[in-house]
Amino acid sequence: MKKLYGIGVGPGDPELITIKGVNVLKKVSAIVTPQGKKGEESIALTIAKPYIREDVHVESLVFPMTRDPEALELTWEDNRKRIENLLDNYGEVAFLTLGDPSVFSTYMYMVPRLLEKNISVETIPGITAFSALGSAINKSLTLDTESLGVYPMQKKGEGLRSALSIFDNLVVMKVSTDPEAIQEVLKEQGLERNFVLISHVSQREQNISYDISKLSKGQVPYLSTMLIKKKEVFQ
Amino acid sequence: MKKLYGIGVGPGDPELITIKGVNVLKKVSAIVTPQGKKGEESIALTIAKPYIREDVHVESLVFPMTRDPEALELTWEDNRKRIENLLDNYGEVAFLTLGDPSVFSTYMYMVPRLLEKNISVETIPGITAFSALGSAINKSLTLDTESLGVYPMQKKGEGLRSALSIFDNLVVMKVSTDPEAIQEVLKEQGLERNFVLISHVSQREQNISYDISKLSKGQVPYLSTMLIKKKEVFQ
Repeated sequence: MKKLYGIGVGPGDPELITIKGVNVLKKVSAIVTPQGKKGEESIALTIAKPYIREDVHVESLVFPMTRDPEALELTWEDNRKRIENLLDNYGEVAFLTLGDPSVFSTYMYMVPRLLEKNISVETIPGITAFSALGSAINKSLTLDTESLGVYPMQKKGEGLRSALSIFDNLVVMKVSTDPEAIQEVLKEQGLERNFVLISHVSQREQNISYDISKLSKGQVPYLSTMLIKKKEVFQ
Repeated sequence: MKKLYGIGVGPGDPELITIKGVNVLKKVSAIVTPQGKKGEESIALTIAKPYIREDVHVESLVFPMTRDPEALELTWEDNRKRIENLLDNYGEVAFLTLGDPSVFSTYMYMVPRLLEKNISVETIPGITAFSALGSAINKSLTLDTESLGVYPMQKKGEGLRSALSIFDNLVVMKVSTDPEAIQEVLKEQGLERNFVLISHVSQREQNISYDISKLSKGQVPYLSTMLIKKKEVFQ
Protein backbone atom coordinates (compact mmCIF):
# COMPACT_ATOMS: atom_id res chain seq x y z
CA MET A 1 0.00 0.00 0.00
CA LYS A 2 1.19 3.53 -0.82
CA LYS A 3 0.90 6.05 1.97
CA LEU A 4 2.64 9.22 3.07
CA TYR A 5 2.91 9.89 6.79
CA GLY A 6 3.67 13.40 8.00
CA ILE A 7 5.27 13.06 11.42
CA GLY A 8 5.87 15.82 13.92
CA VAL A 9 9.08 14.80 15.69
CA GLY A 10 8.71 17.47 18.37
CA PRO A 11 11.04 20.28 19.46
CA GLY A 12 14.34 18.42 19.88
CA ASP A 13 14.42 15.86 22.69
CA PRO A 14 13.97 12.46 20.96
CA GLU A 15 11.73 11.40 23.89
CA LEU A 16 9.25 14.10 22.93
CA ILE A 17 7.95 12.16 19.92
CA THR A 18 4.59 10.42 20.28
CA ILE A 19 4.19 6.64 20.48
CA LYS A 20 2.23 6.85 17.21
CA GLY A 21 5.10 8.66 15.48
CA VAL A 22 7.63 6.10 16.72
CA ASN A 23 5.46 3.19 15.56
CA VAL A 24 5.39 4.62 12.04
CA LEU A 25 9.11 5.48 12.03
CA LYS A 26 9.90 1.86 12.93
CA LYS A 27 8.06 0.44 9.93
CA VAL A 28 8.71 2.81 7.02
CA SER A 29 11.56 2.06 4.63
CA ALA A 30 11.93 5.61 3.27
CA ILE A 31 12.10 8.99 4.96
CA VAL A 32 11.83 12.49 3.56
CA THR A 33 13.43 15.41 5.36
CA PRO A 34 12.98 19.06 4.38
CA GLN A 35 16.06 21.25 3.99
CA GLY A 36 16.52 25.00 3.69
CA LYS A 37 19.77 24.60 1.78
CA LYS A 38 21.47 21.68 0.05
CA GLY A 39 23.85 19.80 2.33
CA GLU A 40 22.37 21.29 5.51
CA GLU A 41 21.98 18.80 8.33
CA SER A 42 18.38 17.92 9.16
CA ILE A 43 17.51 18.49 12.81
CA ALA A 44 14.30 16.48 12.37
CA LEU A 45 16.33 13.49 11.16
CA THR A 46 18.70 13.70 14.13
CA ILE A 47 15.69 13.63 16.46
CA ALA A 48 14.14 10.63 14.70
CA LYS A 49 17.40 8.66 14.45
CA PRO A 50 16.90 6.43 17.55
CA TYR A 51 13.72 5.02 16.03
CA ILE A 52 14.42 4.50 12.32
CA ARG A 53 15.57 1.32 10.59
CA GLU A 54 19.27 1.06 9.78
CA ASP A 55 18.55 0.29 6.13
CA VAL A 56 16.08 3.16 5.72
CA HIS A 57 16.39 5.28 2.60
CA VAL A 58 16.67 9.00 3.45
CA GLU A 59 15.92 11.67 0.89
CA SER A 60 16.38 15.40 1.49
CA LEU A 61 13.99 17.73 -0.24
CA VAL A 62 15.21 21.28 -0.64
CA PHE A 63 12.61 23.96 0.10
CA PRO A 64 14.40 27.20 -0.69
CA MET A 65 13.56 30.24 1.44
CA THR A 66 12.31 32.29 -1.48
CA ARG A 67 9.15 34.39 -1.93
CA ASP A 68 9.18 34.17 -5.73
CA PRO A 69 5.90 32.34 -6.56
CA GLU A 70 7.22 30.83 -9.79
CA ALA A 71 10.36 29.44 -8.18
CA LEU A 72 8.23 28.08 -5.32
CA GLU A 73 5.76 26.42 -7.68
CA LEU A 74 8.59 24.71 -9.58
CA THR A 75 10.14 23.47 -6.32
CA TRP A 76 6.85 22.12 -5.02
CA GLU A 77 6.09 20.33 -8.27
CA ASP A 78 9.56 18.84 -8.31
CA ASN A 79 9.27 17.76 -4.69
CA ARG A 80 5.84 16.26 -5.30
CA LYS A 81 7.25 14.12 -8.11
CA ARG A 82 10.13 12.97 -5.92
CA ILE A 83 7.71 11.95 -3.16
CA GLU A 84 5.58 10.07 -5.70
CA ASN A 85 8.69 8.24 -6.89
CA LEU A 86 9.53 7.29 -3.33
CA LEU A 87 6.01 6.01 -2.77
CA ASP A 88 6.29 3.92 -5.96
CA ASN A 89 9.59 2.44 -4.82
CA TYR A 90 9.07 2.11 -1.07
CA GLY A 91 5.31 2.00 -0.44
CA GLU A 92 5.11 3.75 2.91
CA VAL A 93 7.12 6.94 3.38
CA ALA A 94 7.49 9.28 6.38
CA PHE A 95 7.92 13.04 5.93
CA LEU A 96 9.57 14.44 9.07
CA THR A 97 8.74 17.86 10.43
CA LEU A 98 10.33 19.63 13.39
CA GLY A 99 7.70 20.42 16.03
CA ASP A 100 4.15 19.94 14.77
CA PRO A 101 3.18 19.49 11.07
CA SER A 102 0.31 21.96 11.33
CA VAL A 103 2.35 24.85 12.73
CA PHE A 104 4.57 26.54 10.12
CA SER A 105 5.64 23.38 8.33
CA THR A 106 6.59 23.09 4.63
CA TYR A 107 4.99 19.63 4.72
CA MET A 108 1.56 21.27 4.54
CA TYR A 109 2.47 22.87 1.20
CA MET A 110 2.99 19.39 -0.21
CA VAL A 111 -0.15 17.74 1.19
CA PRO A 112 -2.82 19.29 -1.09
CA ARG A 113 -0.64 18.49 -4.13
CA LEU A 114 -0.48 14.84 -3.08
CA LEU A 115 -4.15 14.53 -2.11
CA GLU A 116 -4.99 15.86 -5.59
CA LYS A 117 -3.23 12.80 -7.01
CA ASN A 118 -5.29 10.53 -4.76
CA ILE A 119 -2.32 9.67 -2.58
CA SER A 120 -3.22 8.53 0.91
CA VAL A 121 -1.88 10.91 3.56
CA GLU A 122 -1.88 10.58 7.35
CA THR A 123 -0.58 13.35 9.59
CA ILE A 124 0.68 12.64 13.10
CA PRO A 125 0.85 15.66 15.39
CA GLY A 126 3.97 16.68 17.31
CA ILE A 127 4.92 18.74 20.34
CA THR A 128 5.34 22.40 19.37
CA ALA A 129 8.28 24.49 20.53
CA PHE A 130 5.87 26.65 22.54
CA SER A 131 4.37 23.72 24.47
CA ALA A 132 7.94 22.64 25.25
CA LEU A 133 8.72 26.19 26.35
CA GLY A 134 5.84 26.17 28.86
CA SER A 135 7.00 22.83 30.25
CA ALA A 136 10.65 23.95 30.43
CA ILE A 137 9.78 26.84 32.74
CA ASN A 138 6.88 25.07 34.52
CA LYS A 139 4.50 27.85 33.51
CA SER A 140 1.26 28.08 31.59
CA LEU A 141 1.18 29.70 28.17
CA THR A 142 -2.43 30.55 28.88
CA LEU A 143 -4.88 29.89 31.71
CA ASP A 144 -8.56 30.32 32.48
CA THR A 145 -10.13 32.99 30.22
CA GLU A 146 -6.81 34.37 28.93
CA SER A 147 -6.11 34.34 25.21
CA LEU A 148 -2.96 33.22 23.44
CA GLY A 149 -1.47 34.46 20.20
CA VAL A 150 1.17 32.74 18.10
CA TYR A 151 3.00 35.23 15.95
CA PRO A 152 5.75 34.47 13.44
CA MET A 153 8.21 37.35 13.72
CA GLN A 154 8.53 39.56 10.67
CA LYS A 155 11.07 42.27 9.88
CA LYS A 156 10.49 45.46 11.87
CA GLY A 157 7.96 43.73 14.09
CA GLU A 158 5.10 44.40 11.72
CA GLY A 159 1.98 43.03 13.40
CA LEU A 160 3.66 42.52 16.77
CA ARG A 161 2.11 45.65 18.29
CA SER A 162 -1.43 44.79 17.23
CA ALA A 163 -0.98 41.19 18.42
CA LEU A 164 0.16 42.50 21.80
CA SER A 165 -2.75 44.90 21.97
CA ILE A 166 -5.25 42.02 21.78
CA PHE A 167 -3.65 39.05 23.49
CA ASP A 168 -2.78 38.45 27.15
CA ASN A 169 -0.09 35.99 26.19
CA LEU A 170 1.92 35.95 23.01
CA VAL A 171 4.27 33.34 21.62
CA VAL A 172 6.76 34.82 19.16
CA MET A 173 8.29 32.33 16.76
CA LYS A 174 11.20 32.91 14.37
CA VAL A 175 12.58 35.45 16.88
CA SER A 176 15.93 35.60 15.06
CA THR A 177 14.24 37.33 12.09
CA ASP A 178 14.54 40.69 13.87
CA PRO A 179 15.31 40.53 17.61
CA GLU A 180 16.05 44.27 17.80
CA ALA A 181 12.53 45.09 16.66
CA ILE A 182 11.14 42.89 19.45
CA GLN A 183 13.41 44.62 21.95
CA GLU A 184 12.06 47.99 20.81
CA VAL A 185 8.41 46.96 21.11
CA LEU A 186 8.94 45.38 24.55
CA LYS A 187 10.58 48.58 25.83
CA GLU A 188 7.98 50.82 24.29
CA GLN A 189 5.19 48.83 25.99
CA GLY A 190 6.91 48.50 29.37
CA LEU A 191 7.24 44.75 28.97
CA GLU A 192 11.03 44.53 29.51
CA ARG A 193 10.60 41.93 32.26
CA ASN A 194 7.51 40.18 30.93
CA PHE A 195 9.17 37.79 28.52
CA VAL A 196 11.26 34.67 28.38
CA LEU A 197 13.37 33.57 25.43
CA ILE A 198 14.25 29.91 25.02
CA SER A 199 16.71 28.65 22.43
CA HIS A 200 17.02 24.98 21.48
CA VAL A 201 14.18 24.08 23.83
CA SER A 202 14.36 20.50 25.21
CA GLN A 203 17.78 20.00 23.56
CA ARG A 204 21.13 19.65 25.30
CA GLU A 205 22.04 23.23 24.31
CA GLN A 206 18.77 24.63 25.75
CA ASN A 207 19.22 28.21 26.93
CA ILE A 208 16.70 30.28 28.91
CA SER A 209 17.11 34.06 28.93
CA TYR A 210 15.24 36.94 30.54
CA ASP A 211 17.80 39.52 29.44
CA ILE A 212 16.40 42.12 27.05
CA SER A 213 19.85 43.32 26.01
CA LYS A 214 20.50 39.91 24.46
CA LEU A 215 17.77 40.56 21.89
CA SER A 216 20.13 41.53 19.14
CA LYS A 217 21.24 40.17 15.80
CA GLY A 218 23.72 37.32 16.05
CA GLN A 219 22.88 36.65 19.70
CA VAL A 220 19.63 34.81 19.04
CA PRO A 221 19.95 31.30 17.54
CA TYR A 222 17.63 30.23 14.71
CA LEU A 223 15.71 27.81 16.95
CA SER A 224 14.42 30.35 19.47
CA THR A 225 10.93 30.90 20.81
CA MET A 226 9.66 33.71 23.03
CA LEU A 227 6.75 33.93 25.41
CA ILE A 228 5.44 37.38 26.38
CA LYS A 229 2.96 37.51 29.28
CA LYS A 230 1.44 40.94 29.70
CA LYS A 231 0.19 40.22 33.22
CA GLU A 232 3.29 38.51 34.59
CA VAL A 233 6.79 39.66 35.40
CA PHE A 234 9.24 36.81 34.93
CA GLN A 235 12.31 38.00 36.81
CA MET B 1 13.39 11.13 45.93
CA LYS B 2 10.23 13.22 45.95
CA LYS B 3 9.15 14.62 42.61
CA LEU B 4 5.94 15.67 40.92
CA TYR B 5 5.65 15.11 37.18
CA GLY B 6 3.01 16.98 35.21
CA ILE B 7 2.24 14.91 32.13
CA GLY B 8 0.29 16.02 29.08
CA VAL B 9 -1.46 12.86 27.90
CA GLY B 10 -2.57 14.45 24.63
CA PRO B 11 -6.03 14.84 23.08
CA GLY B 12 -7.44 11.33 23.41
CA ASP B 13 -5.69 8.65 21.33
CA PRO B 14 -3.42 6.80 23.82
CA GLU B 15 -0.76 6.65 21.06
CA LEU B 16 -0.53 10.45 21.11
CA ILE B 17 1.41 10.50 24.39
CA THR B 18 5.14 11.15 24.18
CA ILE B 19 7.78 8.51 24.87
CA LYS B 20 8.92 10.68 27.80
CA GLY B 21 5.41 10.70 29.27
CA VAL B 22 5.09 6.93 28.93
CA ASN B 23 8.48 6.35 30.59
CA VAL B 24 7.35 8.34 33.62
CA LEU B 25 3.90 6.72 33.73
CA LYS B 26 5.55 3.28 33.83
CA LYS B 27 7.62 4.08 36.91
CA VAL B 28 5.41 6.19 39.19
CA SER B 29 3.43 4.49 41.93
CA ALA B 30 0.86 7.25 42.39
CA ILE B 31 -1.20 9.27 39.95
CA VAL B 32 -3.24 12.42 40.41
CA THR B 33 -6.13 13.22 38.09
CA PRO B 34 -8.10 16.45 38.14
CA GLN B 35 -11.88 16.34 38.22
CA GLY B 36 -14.56 18.95 37.62
CA LYS B 37 -17.03 17.11 39.84
CA LYS B 38 -16.73 14.30 42.38
CA GLY B 39 -17.28 10.88 40.82
CA GLU B 40 -16.76 12.13 37.27
CA GLU B 41 -14.68 9.78 35.12
CA SER B 42 -11.24 11.13 34.24
CA ILE B 43 -10.58 11.19 30.50
CA ALA B 44 -6.87 11.74 31.13
CA LEU B 45 -6.75 8.56 33.23
CA THR B 46 -8.50 6.53 30.51
CA ILE B 47 -5.88 7.73 28.01
CA ALA B 48 -2.98 6.87 30.33
CA LYS B 49 -4.35 3.45 31.32
CA PRO B 50 -2.34 1.31 28.84
CA TYR B 51 0.90 2.57 30.39
CA ILE B 52 0.33 2.67 34.14
CA ARG B 53 1.22 0.01 36.69
CA GLU B 54 -1.59 -2.25 37.88
CA ASP B 55 -0.87 -1.49 41.52
CA VAL B 56 -0.70 2.27 41.00
CA HIS B 57 -2.52 4.46 43.51
CA VAL B 58 -4.94 6.87 41.80
CA GLU B 59 -6.19 9.96 43.55
CA SER B 60 -8.77 12.33 42.09
CA LEU B 61 -8.47 15.99 42.99
CA VAL B 62 -11.63 18.00 42.60
CA PHE B 63 -11.15 21.42 41.01
CA PRO B 64 -14.61 22.96 41.15
CA MET B 65 -15.63 25.24 38.28
CA THR B 66 -16.13 28.26 40.49
CA ARG B 67 -14.96 31.87 40.13
CA ASP B 68 -15.14 32.63 43.85
CA PRO B 69 -11.52 33.46 44.82
CA GLU B 70 -11.91 32.31 48.42
CA ALA B 71 -13.40 28.97 47.46
CA LEU B 72 -10.66 28.51 44.86
CA GLU B 73 -7.90 29.36 47.33
CA LEU B 74 -9.25 26.81 49.82
CA THR B 75 -9.45 24.13 47.12
CA TRP B 76 -5.92 24.81 45.91
CA GLU B 77 -4.50 24.71 49.41
CA ASP B 78 -6.33 21.48 50.14
CA ASN B 79 -5.13 19.95 46.87
CA ARG B 80 -1.57 21.07 47.53
CA LYS B 81 -1.63 19.28 50.88
CA ARG B 82 -3.00 16.14 49.30
CA ILE B 83 -0.24 16.17 46.69
CA GLU B 84 2.37 16.68 49.40
CA ASN B 85 0.94 13.69 51.29
CA LEU B 86 1.15 11.58 48.15
CA LEU B 87 4.77 12.63 47.63
CA ASP B 88 5.55 11.67 51.24
CA ASN B 89 3.97 8.26 50.78
CA TYR B 90 4.89 7.40 47.19
CA GLY B 91 7.97 9.47 46.28
CA GLU B 92 7.31 10.11 42.62
CA VAL B 93 3.84 11.15 41.55
CA ALA B 94 2.37 11.96 38.12
CA PHE B 95 -0.30 14.63 37.65
CA LEU B 96 -2.20 13.91 34.42
CA THR B 97 -3.53 16.64 32.20
CA LEU B 98 -5.58 16.28 29.03
CA GLY B 99 -3.75 17.83 26.06
CA ASP B 100 -0.79 19.95 27.09
CA PRO B 101 -0.06 21.11 30.68
CA SER B 102 0.71 24.67 29.58
CA VAL B 103 -2.55 25.26 27.71
CA PHE B 104 -5.56 25.82 30.00
CA SER B 105 -4.62 23.23 32.61
CA THR B 106 -5.50 23.32 36.32
CA TYR B 107 -2.13 21.67 36.95
CA MET B 108 -0.43 25.03 36.42
CA TYR B 109 -2.40 26.52 39.33
CA MET B 110 -0.81 23.91 41.60
CA VAL B 111 2.78 24.24 40.39
CA PRO B 112 3.75 27.60 41.98
CA ARG B 113 2.27 26.42 45.31
CA LEU B 114 4.45 23.31 45.20
CA LEU B 115 7.61 25.07 44.02
CA GLU B 116 7.16 27.45 46.96
CA LYS B 117 7.52 24.42 49.26
CA ASN B 118 10.73 23.40 47.46
CA ILE B 119 9.10 20.43 45.83
CA SER B 120 10.80 19.27 42.65
CA VAL B 121 8.51 19.57 39.64
CA GLU B 122 9.02 18.41 36.04
CA THR B 123 6.52 19.15 33.32
CA ILE B 124 6.25 16.98 30.20
CA PRO B 125 4.47 18.60 27.27
CA GLY B 126 1.56 16.98 25.43
CA ILE B 127 -0.19 17.22 22.08
CA THR B 128 -2.83 19.95 22.15
CA ALA B 129 -6.34 19.44 20.77
CA PHE B 130 -5.57 22.04 18.10
CA SER B 131 -2.43 20.28 16.83
CA ALA B 132 -4.51 17.09 16.65
CA LEU B 133 -7.21 19.02 14.77
CA GLY B 134 -4.71 20.14 12.11
CA SER B 135 -3.48 16.58 11.69
CA ALA B 136 -7.01 15.14 11.55
CA ILE B 137 -7.90 17.29 8.54
CA ASN B 138 -4.39 17.29 7.00
CA LYS B 139 -4.29 21.07 7.10
CA SER B 140 -2.06 23.70 8.61
CA LEU B 141 -3.26 25.80 11.51
CA THR B 142 -0.88 28.49 10.31
CA LEU B 143 1.71 28.79 7.53
CA ASP B 144 4.39 31.18 6.38
CA THR B 145 3.79 34.70 7.77
CA GLU B 146 0.23 34.02 8.96
CA SER B 147 -0.61 34.47 12.61
CA LEU B 148 -2.56 32.14 14.87
CA GLY B 149 -4.77 32.96 17.82
CA VAL B 150 -5.97 30.58 20.50
CA TYR B 151 -9.12 31.86 22.11
CA PRO B 152 -11.04 30.22 24.96
CA MET B 153 -14.70 30.83 24.19
CA GLN B 154 -16.58 33.02 26.62
CA LYS B 155 -20.29 33.71 26.95
CA LYS B 156 -21.61 35.98 24.20
CA GLY B 157 -18.35 35.67 22.26
CA GLU B 158 -16.72 38.52 24.14
CA GLY B 159 -13.30 38.99 22.57
CA LEU B 160 -14.01 36.74 19.59
CA ARG B 161 -14.58 39.67 17.21
CA SER B 162 -11.36 41.43 18.14
CA ALA B 163 -9.40 38.17 17.92
CA LEU B 164 -10.82 37.61 14.43
CA SER B 165 -9.97 41.16 13.41
CA ILE B 166 -6.27 40.57 14.11
CA PHE B 167 -5.56 36.94 13.32
CA ASP B 168 -5.57 35.06 10.02
CA ASN B 169 -6.28 31.79 11.79
CA LEU B 170 -8.10 31.33 15.04
CA VAL B 171 -8.48 28.27 17.22
CA VAL B 172 -11.55 28.47 19.44
CA MET B 173 -11.43 26.24 22.49
CA LYS B 174 -14.28 25.49 24.92
CA VAL B 175 -16.70 25.94 21.99
CA SER B 176 -19.59 24.45 23.98
CA THR B 177 -19.58 27.50 26.29
CA ASP B 178 -21.71 29.42 23.79
CA PRO B 179 -21.90 27.90 20.27
CA GLU B 180 -24.77 30.23 19.24
CA ALA B 181 -22.58 33.28 19.82
CA ILE B 182 -19.91 31.79 17.55
CA GLN B 183 -22.53 31.10 14.91
CA GLU B 184 -23.64 34.71 15.07
CA VAL B 185 -20.10 36.11 14.73
CA LEU B 186 -19.26 33.76 11.83
CA LYS B 187 -22.41 34.83 9.95
CA GLU B 188 -21.85 38.50 10.67
CA GLN B 189 -18.30 38.29 9.26
CA GLY B 190 -19.17 36.17 6.24
CA LEU B 191 -17.17 33.22 7.57
CA GLU B 192 -19.96 30.62 7.42
CA ARG B 193 -17.80 28.25 5.38
CA ASN B 194 -14.41 29.15 6.82
CA PHE B 195 -14.47 26.94 9.88
CA VAL B 196 -14.21 23.34 10.96
CA LEU B 197 -15.45 21.95 14.27
CA ILE B 198 -13.94 18.77 15.64
CA SER B 199 -15.32 16.95 18.65
CA HIS B 200 -13.40 14.23 20.50
CA VAL B 201 -10.42 14.72 18.20
CA SER B 202 -8.27 11.57 17.77
CA GLN B 203 -10.78 9.52 19.78
CA ARG B 204 -13.06 6.78 18.48
CA GLU B 205 -16.03 9.16 18.64
CA GLN B 206 -14.21 11.85 16.62
CA ASN B 207 -16.65 13.97 14.63
CA ILE B 208 -15.76 16.60 12.01
CA SER B 209 -18.39 19.18 11.09
CA TYR B 210 -18.55 22.10 8.67
CA ASP B 211 -22.24 22.72 9.32
CA ILE B 212 -22.93 26.12 10.85
CA SER B 213 -26.48 25.17 11.86
CA LYS B 214 -25.01 22.59 14.26
CA LEU B 215 -23.51 25.40 16.33
CA SER B 216 -26.19 25.36 18.96
CA LYS B 217 -26.49 24.47 22.62
CA GLY B 218 -26.69 20.76 23.29
CA GLN B 219 -25.31 19.84 19.86
CA VAL B 220 -21.68 20.62 20.67
CA PRO B 221 -19.91 18.16 23.00
CA TYR B 222 -17.68 19.47 25.80
CA LEU B 223 -14.50 18.28 24.07
CA SER B 224 -14.83 20.35 20.89
CA THR B 225 -12.29 22.57 19.16
CA MET B 226 -12.84 24.91 16.22
CA LEU B 227 -10.47 26.28 13.62
CA ILE B 228 -11.46 29.42 11.72
CA LYS B 229 -9.33 30.33 8.68
CA LYS B 230 -10.22 33.74 7.31
CA LYS B 231 -8.49 33.10 3.97
CA GLU B 232 -9.76 29.58 3.33
CA VAL B 233 -13.15 28.09 2.57
CA PHE B 234 -13.38 24.57 3.94
CA GLN B 235 -16.39 23.14 2.11
